[in-house]
Amino acid sequence: MEQKRNAVAVVGAGSWGTALAMVLADNGCETRLWSHNPQQVKEINQSHTNEKYLPGITIPELVTGYDDLQKALNGIQTIILSVPTKAIREVLAKIAQFQKDPLVIVHVSKGIEPDTLLRISEMIEQEMPKELVKDVVVLSGPSHAEEVSLRHPTTVTVSSRNMEAAEKVQDLFINQNFRVYTNPDLIGVEIGGALKNIIALAAGISDGLGYGDNAKAALITRGLAEIARLGVKMGASPLTFSGLTGIGDLIVTCTSVHSRNWRAGNMLGKGRNLEEVLDEMGMVVEGVRTTKAAHQLARKYDVKMPITDALHDILFGEVDPKDAVDGLMTRRRTHEMEDLADILSERSQHL
Amino acid sequence: MEQKRNAVAVVGAGSWGTALAMVLADNGCETRLWSHNPQQVKEINQSHTNEKYLPGITIPELVTGYDDLQKALNGIQTIILSVPTKAIREVLAKIAQFQKDPLVIVHVSKGIEPDTLLRISEMIEQEMPKELVKDVVVLSGPSHAEEVSLRHPTTVTVSSRNMEAAEKVQDLFINQNFRVYTNPDLIGVEIGGALKNIIALAAGISDGLGYGDNAKAALITRGLAEIARLGVKMGASPLTFSGLTGIGDLIVTCTSVHSRNWRAGNMLGKGRNLEEVLDEMGMVVEGVRTTKAAHQLARKYDVKMPITDALHDILFGEVDPKDAVDGLMTRRRTHEMEDLADILSERSQHL
Repeated sequence: MEQKRNAVAVVGAGSWGTALAMVLADNGCETRLWSHNPQQVKEINQSHTNEKYLPGITIPELVTGYDDLQKALNGIQTIILSVPTKAIREVLAKIAQFQKDPLVIVHVSKGIEPDTLLRISEMIEQEMPKELVKDVVVLSGPSHAEEVSLRHPTTVTVSSRNMEAAEKVQDLFINQNFRVYTNPDLIGVEIGGALKNIIALAAGISDGLGYGDNAKAALITRGLAEIARLGVKMGASPLTFSGLTGIGDLIVTCTSVHSRNWRAGNMLGKGRNLEEVLDEMGMVVEGVRTTKAAHQLARKYDVKMPITDALHDILFGEVDPKDAVDGLMTRRRTHEMEDLADILSERSQHL
Repeated sequence: MEQKRNAVAVVGAGSWGTALAMVLADNGCETRLWSHNPQQVKEINQSHTNEKYLPGITIPELVTGYDDLQKALNGIQTIILSVPTKAIREVLAKIAQFQKDPLVIVHVSKGIEPDTLLRISEMIEQEMPKELVKDVVVLSGPSHAEEVSLRHPTTVTVSSRNMEAAEKVQDLFINQNFRVYTNPDLIGVEIGGALKNIIALAAGISDGLGYGDNAKAALITRGLAEIARLGVKMGASPLTFSGLTGIGDLIVTCTSVHSRNWRAGNMLGKGRNLEEVLDEMGMVVEGVRTTKAAHQLARKYDVKMPITDALHDILFGEVDPKDAVDGLMTRRRTHEMEDLADILSERSQHL
């Protein structure tokens, strides 16, 4: 079988997968964009558009749509996995049925698997036979797909347990508009991306209650602190949480009214209950599932996460949002970094 | 002279000084609010308002206006210094003329003194005779004064070289709406507050150029990284920059159209030149002076600050904003934390 060194398959043709395929094509890669939907594939190949996900955008000629996963991966060494978190295991199982050679798997999703509490790279390693995985790389950061497809300046981070693999992915994607950094802290990059949706929900609630910028900035900052506390206990570096995949992604998610999580929180803050909100949204609000997972993680790792707990009370305990926020404000007086400093000294980690 | 243990003087009756006086009064302090303007003092005492700075707000009865600085400080042990950075030395010199007993001086301003490159606590220690200074404390954080005066939830941080003094200030201010944290990292708290205005200018330029949320999040995140690099070289803890006085204050400043610095940057991004912009603003844009100071600090401490340098080129070198931003995007590929990690290992600091 011919090894196409400069060909990449993007598995999943939503807005993010399509935007990333465009970046690869801009860099001269033969880019195969897989979708399970033949109509969408036809549209990509005939009119070079993907109107449902990136309206008004022209997709470069170097992107070819595929509805056959095996054909899309034929001779390919690197895939970009861009399907919803809940579809990851199913797609990987399909690939495992026909794949012969080891793959570099770049995942671009954000979440923690409910119940197993696994990060996505761990899910991939658990689901795929060892001999079919060369390396797992994560690409994450503050990036609305629409803006990437418009070639507006964007920065992201790649990470992997094998940093040589991450650097190859950096080289694959980096260009004038799309700046790619590396960070060896795989755990921190994955945890930050997943847990930011909790804080987006909380920020939406604060806005829905009519509180101001001070309260929202406090929630974002203290929310980041508790994500960092958990992440550090799980083995991440605290510095990652002040980087692109931490505070960067958090800013984009909490200050954009386009964020589904912010919108759901906003409705909750205005007095609606969770069932009504989810009905009205009509789509998955990742932060709700992630709040459950983070609430379990906080107990598993014995970490204080007051904002996550308050949100859990609002979502699943029918506590009034205003009472929950007021409860956060009246905790005992404290030192800004005390818990994180404790955890760091416990681990006696040198940065 | 009677020592009034529960009386505090707030020196400066702008929006922030007035809002802080209200918090102290809410906590049962006899609060003296000094202004050089007798008309304003009359308004505070007769109609309990300060319409120019906090329109529509009623000031509690426990706040009394003073236009005589010596009377305002009579028997007082703690003052809140809330005057513009450039007026600090002048006001302190006046106090030194009559003051007999040592004071706890709580400053709530944000800046670096041009030319001397001193932080504000250093300016205070330099300007005031040693025997008149008991402790210097800084109070900083993400806090629009208007929201504090509406008693919306707000969080701030206090710091000092003497943490007992900081804790006393924490006790003085903390209440249900106004949550006060302590942080022993005086340098980090002061540097974060001062340098955030540079990033607000850069964020405004990015928005003015028509770039999107991805670019702005990148500027905020990478901007915070270079502030942290400088701060750590100056002796700060990197953790402070992911706290309330770092990222928290940065978020409030960069995402509010009310920020003067953001507005000035926005006009620059739209193609206006600095002179026009400053003329049209008709007031001090702190970030412009701070960019100059930070540019000098970067050289003094040998720290890479590409965003500060690009902004300096735009403001003082007539470089086109678009070229400057594009220049930032095409730097060599890099590891997200490499410079900070280098600086930390150089200092071999344990967190």
